[in-house]
Amino acid sequence: MLAFSSAMHAAAIAKGKVYLVGAGPGDPGLLTLEAAKLLKTADVVFHDDLVSHEILDLIPDHVYLESVGKRCGHARVSQKQIHALMINAANEGWKVVRLKSGDPLIFGRAGEEMESLRQAGIEYVVVPGVTAAFAAAAQAGIPLTDRRLASKLVFLSNHQCEGKNLFDWKGALSADTTALIYMPGPDYATLAARLCEEGVPLDTPCLLISHATNPRQQIYFTRVAELAESPRFTAPAVLIVGAVAGYFANIRTGNESRTVDLLLNLVSNEAEAHGH
Amino acid sequence: MLAFSSAMHAAAIAKGKVYLVGAGPGDPGLLTLEAAKLLKTADVVFHDDLVSHEILDLIPDHVYLESVGKRCGHARVSQKQIHALMINAANEGWKVVRLKSGDPLIFGRAGEEMESLRQAGIEYVVVPGVTAAFAAAAQAGIPLTDRRLASKLVFLSNHQCEGKNLFDWKGALSADTTALIYMPGPDYATLAARLCEEGVPLDTPCLLISHATNPRQQIYFTRVAELAESPRFTAPAVLIVGAVAGYFANIRTGNESRTVDLLLNLVSNEAEAHGH
Repeated sequence: MLAFSSAMHAAAIAKGKVYLVGAGPGDPGLLTLEAAKLLKTADVVFHDDLVSHEILDLIPDHVYLESVGKRCGHARVSQKQIHALMINAANEGWKVVRLKSGDPLIFGRAGEEMESLRQAGIEYVVVPGVTAAFAAAAQAGIPLTDRRLASKLVFLSNHQCEGKNLFDWKGALSADTTALIYMPGPDYATLAARLCEEGVPLDTPCLLISHATNPRQQIYFTRVAELAESPRFTAPAVLIVGAVAGYFANIRTGNESRTVDLLLNLVSNEAEAHGH
Repeated sequence: MLAFSSAMHAAAIAKGKVYLVGAGPGDPGLLTLEAAKLLKTADVVFHDDLVSHEILDLIPDHVYLESVGKRCGHARVSQKQIHALMINAANEGWKVVRLKSGDPLIFGRAGEEMESLRQAGIEYVVVPGVTAAFAAAAQAGIPLTDRRLASKLVFLSNHQCEGKNLFDWKGALSADTTALIYMPGPDYATLAARLCEEGVPLDTPCLLISHATNPRQQIYFTRVAELAESPRFTAPAVLIVGAVAGYFANIRTGNESRTVDLLLNLVSNEAEAHGH
């Protein structure tokens, strides 16, 4: 609580400001210079559960640090409480960092948080970050938009609450699409079924990556047909689905050129089958 | 050329390594800590045209710096030459940074570059970065995946060579999709026609952002119907298409709640019209 008292004198002068900051995928080296500076100069940091220990360790002891993480069905802090915490701290004149893993505008509730700040007349700044899927692709050496294999890149979320999918995938997938699926969850069988329903061929390469760029990182290559039998990785995890994921296996087997040819055939056959 | 000679002694010892590094959108504060460190410790940096002056200014004078930028139809350096430059420098034992604007795996030719390095037996590392569209969204305050308005986020490129589109957009767009269109180019009329062909309604909000996070940043709000009349922004530019782009206008007019309601109606009407 040191920061709260040391910042008291500023409260009478002006309202504080809120920084919605992307923490990146986990490796502190993938924080932006701006994010690293803000973490060292903030009065208060409210962070999500998935922000890595290594990054939280960079925050000086005098900064007031609070986890406002919440998971489906296990909310410790409600969304409204998060809004109130930020608004109250800013009204006290404090420099507030709202730290989100990855990029702050992707699959979080930044829209609602910005709205609540505007309604309360609190100034805010958004500091973008490296999103988990790009870090995962970098670690696995996968060119997400390789022009020979992919013409679209789509971000999807498999986040569910009480069995209900919040996000519609209809029409989002095709043979020449690279899909980045956030929050794949532990039920890979249902996820594989959902991919099949959307017309994704059973032999499409898949790459599961959890804790990308962290010491706990795990990478597993499979195909849609065998996805249900994959090892259960813990959050944060990302599933990359599409021909480009095949690169990972190719590189490891030294079969690169041959496999890229096969993948190109796969894509063109699929395109014909869909009448493109 | 200082770096070339000072690094000579290392050449006999070991092969150098290539770092494929994302420079982020332009603001040096949005470089990752890792990228900033690499730029200061590299022997050679080969960079794209679109990397900002502010970032190039951070590179110490003793580092050999070369632009390998190429534009459609105006290649100064061919892709094969870029491969040869990287491979030769690494074979000399140098620490080579291949600096790309944004994230290195998005709409660049990282796939081909990694392949050439593997074939030459050169070790490489990919350092992800903040992609231009996320920086643009952060600057405009647009929650790209706001669950009330968008269930998919799709990256598309409008890059053309000799009038030929390299990327197929078929099926990628729908009323609840946020589209991030890279390299929109100067021909907004054809771009608007392409969006209409894909079923995007004429009143869909659009936001053009060029030089996001740079002093030269420009933001312009419009709709698909008026896109053709928009001011021509110079590269790098991104076009955000979708209901979430409406936030930008709302925030400025103070009409936020009302407009979000209207946008929600738009989305649900569209969904009905498409039989979802």
